[in-house]
Amino acid sequence: MQKTNKLYCRSRYRIMSGNEIALGPGKVDLLESIHKVGSISEAARQNHISYRRAWNMVNTMNQCFNKPLVESVTGGKGGGGAKLTPLGEKIKTIYRKMEAKASLSTKEEWNSLKKHLKK
Amino acid sequence: MQKTNKLYCRSRYRIMSGNEIALGPGKVDLLESIHKVGSISEAARQNHISYRRAWNMVNTMNQCFNKPLVESVTGGKGGGGAKLTPLGEKIKTIYRKMEAKASLSTKEEWNSLKKHLKK
Repeated sequence: MQKTNKLYCRSRYRIMSGNEIALGPGKVDLLESIHKVGSISEAARQNHISYRRAWNMVNTMNQCFNKPLVESVTGGKGGGGAKLTPLGEKIKTIYRKMEAKASLSTKEEWNSLKKHLKK
Repeated sequence: MQKTNKLYCRSRYRIMSGNEIALGPGKVDLLESIHKVGSISEAARQNHISYRRAWNMVNTMNQCFNKPLVESVTGGKGGGGAKLTPLGEKIKTIYRKMEAKASLSTKEEWNSLKKHLKK
C-alpha cells in the first residue's frame, strides 16, 4: 500500500423501478451532458460510453417515468438532436439535491470514520 | 415491463482509501455477521461469499484502518474464531448511522421523485 492514501466517501443512489435502474449516477451524468451539448451521441462521447448504451439509458429513463425525461429535437443546423424535457430538468435537479443533502447530513459520521483510517 | 413495479431508493456508501474500498455495504454486512456468529467462515457462508473472499475483505479493512476491526479468538469449543474489536464495533455502528441519516435527510427528494415514476 502507498504511504499516503486519498481518503474519501463515495455515495451512490439508485432509484429502482422493479429490476430496472430508473436513475443512478451514470444516468444523471448523461442527463447533464445532454442538457449541455444537446445531443445523445455527443453526450455519450463525453461520458465514454457507446451511443447504443446511452440510447438504452435514455430509453430506460423514459420508460420508467410517467413522462419522458429526454426528447428529440428535429431540424437545426446539426440535423436535430436531443434535449431534456421540463421533467428531465426537474429530476436531474432533485437527484443532485439528494446527493448534496445526504453528504451534508453524514458529515459528522464521515469525519469520525476518517480519524480511524490510515493516512 | 411489468404492470406494477416496486419503487425504491438504494443508497450505497463506499469509504475509499486510495484505490481500496476500506468500507462498503458488503464489508459492513460481513462485520455484522462476524459479530453475530463469531467466525469468518460461518459469516462468509451467511453472506454467500467464499471464505477466501471474506478473509480478503477482513484483511483490507484491517489494513486500511489504524487498528484492526476484526481479530482472531484462540481456543474455545470450535477451536477458535473471530470477533470484532472495539474499533470494529464502533465503525460498523457509525456506518449504519450514516446510512440512516442519509436516508432520513433525503426523504423529501425521494418522495418527490417517486411521484414521477410509473407505478
